Amino acid sequence: MLVLPGLVDTHVHLAQALIRGCADDTSLIDWLQNFVWPLQGNFEAEDGKVSAELCMLEMIKSGTTTFLESLLHSRYGFDGVAQSVDDSGMRGILSKTVMGLPGYGTKDSIMHPGMIEQAETCLREVEDHFEHWNGRGSGRIRVWYGARSLGGCTSELYKQIASGAQRLGTGVTIHLSEVQEDVRFAQREYGKLPAEFIDEVGLVGPNVVFAHGVWLTEKECRILAMKGASVAHCPSSNMKLASGIAKVPEMMKDGVNVSLGCDGGPSNNCYDMIREMKTASLLQKARLLDPLVMNAETILEMATINGARALGLQNEIGSIQVGKRADMILVRLREPHLMPTISPLSNLVYAAEGSDVDTAFIDGKIVMENRVVKTLDESRILRQASERGEKLLERSGIRVESKWPKI
Amino acid sequence: MLVLPGLVDTHVHLAQALIRGCADDTSLIDWLQNFVWPLQGNFEAEDGKVSAELCMLEMIKSGTTTFLESLLHSRYGFDGVAQSVDDSGMRGILSKTVMGLPGYGTKDSIMHPGMIEQAETCLREVEDHFEHWNGRGSGRIRVWYGARSLGGCTSELYKQIASGAQRLGTGVTIHLSEVQEDVRFAQREYGKLPAEFIDEVGLVGPNVVFAHGVWLTEKECRILAMKGASVAHCPSSNMKLASGIAKVPEMMKDGVNVSLGCDGGPSNNCYDMIREMKTASLLQKARLLDPLVMNAETILEMATINGARALGLQNEIGSIQVGKRADMILVRLREPHLMPTISPLSNLVYAAEGSDVDTAFIDGKIVMENRVVKTLDESRILRQASERGEKLLERSGIRVESKWPKI
Repeated sequence: MLVLPGLVDTHVHLAQALIRGCADDTSLIDWLQNFVWPLQGNFEAEDGKVSAELCMLEMIKSGTTTFLESLLHSRYGFDGVAQSVDDSGMRGILSKTVMGLPGYGTKDSIMHPGMIEQAETCLREVEDHFEHWNGRGSGRIRVWYGARSLGGCTSELYKQIASGAQRLGTGVTIHLSEVQEDVRFAQREYGKLPAEFIDEVGLVGPNVVFAHGVWLTEKECRILAMKGASVAHCPSSNMKLASGIAKVPEMMKDGVNVSLGCDGGPSNNCYDMIREMKTASLLQKARLLDPLVMNAETILEMATINGARALGLQNEIGSIQVGKRADMILVRLREPHLMPTISPLSNLVYAAEGSDVDTAFIDGKIVMENRVVKTLDESRILRQASERGEKLLERSGIRVESKWPKI
Repeated sequence: MLVLPGLVDTHVHLAQALIRGCADDTSLIDWLQNFVWPLQGNFEAEDGKVSAELCMLEMIKSGTTTFLESLLHSRYGFDGVAQSVDDSGMRGILSKTVMGLPGYGTKDSIMHPGMIEQAETCLREVEDHFEHWNGRGSGRIRVWYGARSLGGCTSELYKQIASGAQRLGTGVTIHLSEVQEDVRFAQREYGKLPAEFIDEVGLVGPNVVFAHGVWLTEKECRILAMKGASVAHCPSSNMKLASGIAKVPEMMKDGVNVSLGCDGGPSNNCYDMIREMKTASLLQKARLLDPLVMNAETILEMATINGARALGLQNEIGSIQVGKRADMILVRLREPHLMPTISPLSNLVYAAEGSDVDTAFIDGKIVMENRVVKTLDESRILRQASERGEKLLERSGIRVESKWPKI
C-alpha cells in the first residue's frame, strides 16, 4: 500500500451531507432559495450531529484526516457537532457562522427565516465556542469565524470579525468571488473588487481561507499572495453549480497558496478528496488546452501540504516528517483499476477513488483499518441519516423526484 | 440496491490497461511518440490478452457490461483477446485496426515500427476474424473495422473499409476530430472538414461510431445526424490530454446520438463509466456556465441506451425490457457517500464511484456477485499484469518516474 499524509479538505459543509442530492441541475439561486436554505433552516440539532457524523464517515473512508467546516449555523448544534468531531478522532476546524444581513449578494435572494442569525449573538457564540472547544482533543479541534459572503455581513461586522480573530489568535473563512454576481455586488455596493473590499475591512491575512475564488483577478491575487491568505479551490462544486472555472495555475503563479475543497452534499455531491484531485487537474488542462499544467505532483501538494498551510497547521500536518503529528493514510495499490504500478503517483491522482483508502491514522491513532471505521458506528449513522433525511424533507415540505430516463 | 441496465462503454482501448500511468501531464504527440506507441509496439500477444483481461476486470467491477474496443492491433493477438472476451462473459465489439499510412495526422508524428500494419493484411484479417468470431458467445462478440484516423488511412482505403463493412453487414469506428490538428490536417490535405471528408469516402452511417468529435462543427454534426452516425464522447481523456471540450449539448440538439467512452489507461486513466458520467455532466455545465445542461437523466441515457444505439444493439441491450438480453447491474445504495437516498438517480450520477457496483449480469449470467468476478481469475490477472507491465517497460527501454512532492 501507499503511505501518504492524510488529505486536508479545506472547504466542507458538514450539514450538507444530510441533504445530498436534494437539488441538482439547477441554478445557484434556485438551489439556495428553494432547496438548501429551506432544508437547512429546518435542521434540528440532532440533524446537525448526524449529518456531521455521516460526512466524517465519508471523509475518513476516502482519506481525509483534516477538514475546515466553513459555516456552522447555530441551529446545527455546535456542541453536538464538536463532540462528534472529538469522538470521530478527526482533526477538524469548526467555523461558526457569523452574519448580519440576510442576503447572498443578489437582490433576488431571500434567506429562509430559519437560517437568519443576529450579528451580536454570532460574535458572542464564536467566543464561547472558542473558549470551550478550541484545542480540545489534543489540539485536533479548532474554532474559527465562518463569515458569510459579501451580502451577508456589513463592513462593520467584517471589521469586528477581523479584530475578534486577532484577539483570539484564530482563523476566518469566507466564500469569496464564487459566482460572477459576487463581483458585480462588490462593485455596485462598494465600488471595489471583492478581495479589495475584504482587504479594506482587514480580512486578508495568513489566518484567512477564501473558499472558491473563481472570479478573482490578478490584482486581487497579488493582494492575497502578499498578505499570505489562501484559496480553497472546489472544482466539482464550481462545475456542478456552473459558477465558473477558477484560474488556479495563474493564482499559484501569483504566489497564492491554493488548497482543495469538496464543498457539500448538494454541490459536489460527495466528500472524496481522491476524486477531487483528478477533477482539479483535468479541469485546468481542459480550460487552458495545456496538458502540462496541474501535474500530479502539484495536485498532491494542494491536497496535503497546501491544505495544512491554509489552516496554519503546516508545522503539524500535511507531510510525513519527524516532529509532525501522525496523520497518515494507507492506499491500496492492488486493485484492477490501479494495476500495473508503472507510476504509483499517477495511479493515485488519475485512477484511484476514495474507496481505495484502506487505513487512516490521525494523531497516531488508527481511526480506520481495512475500511472499517473504528471511531464511528457506521450502521447506526447510516440508519439515522436515512430516517432524519426523510423527516427533514417532510418537515420542510420539499419533494425531490428522480427523473429517470426510460431505460 | 439499484437495478440498472449494464453500462455501455463505446470507446475503449483494451491494450492500454497494461500501460496505465505510463505518460501523464504531457502533450499528445509526446504521449504517442515517446510512450504509447513504443510501448504498444513492443506488445507480445500474451500482453494483449492480459491487458484485455485486466481491462475487462475493471469494467465489470465498475458496471460496464458492453464495450467497443476501437483499435485492436494484430500484435495484441486478436484470437487471444477474443477468447478472453468470450471467457469473461462480457459483450464486446472488437474492432481490428485498419491502417495504410503510418501517421497520426501531423507531420511530426512518426509511428513506432512495431505499430505499423499493411492495409491489405488488415483488410484480410478483419474478414478472417469476422468469419471466425462474429456472433460467438451467443452473439456477445462482434467484429468491426477499427479504421485509424485521418493520417493513418488513404481515401482509397477508407472506401474499401466502407464497402467491406457493407458487405459483411458490420460496423466501423474511427477517431474523428479529437484534436484541433485533426481539423487542420483535413483542411490541408483534402480541403474539407474531417466529417465532410469521411462522408465523402462513404463512412458516415448508422453503423459508424466516431470517437471524440471534440472539434466537430454544426455543419458536420448535421451530416452525422442525418445519416445516423454516433459520437463516443470521452470527457476525461479529452480533458487530460487537453484535446478540447466536445460541444455535447449542441451535438445532441443537432440530432447526433452521443454515447460515452472511457478511452484508455494512459489517457483517463481508468475504465470507470460511473465516474465518467459525473465528469461528462460537470464538464458541460462548467463550459457553458449553465447548471441546467446535461442533467442526470440525459447522462444516464448516454451511458446506457445511447451506447446501445451507437453499437446498433438498441433492440438487444441498453434498457431493461421484455425481449431484450438480460444485461443488468446492481448498485449499492447504502454507503456513506450515497446516503441519504433523497434521489437515487442523483446519487448514482453525482456521488457514486465504480466500486459501488455490487453485481453484474450479462446475457442472464451472473458475472459478478458481491464484487467477486466469477468469470475472470482476479488474483492471477493482477499478478500477470504486474509482471508483464514491468517486462514491457524494460523491453521498450522506457523509464517512468513518479515525481513525488516533498510530503
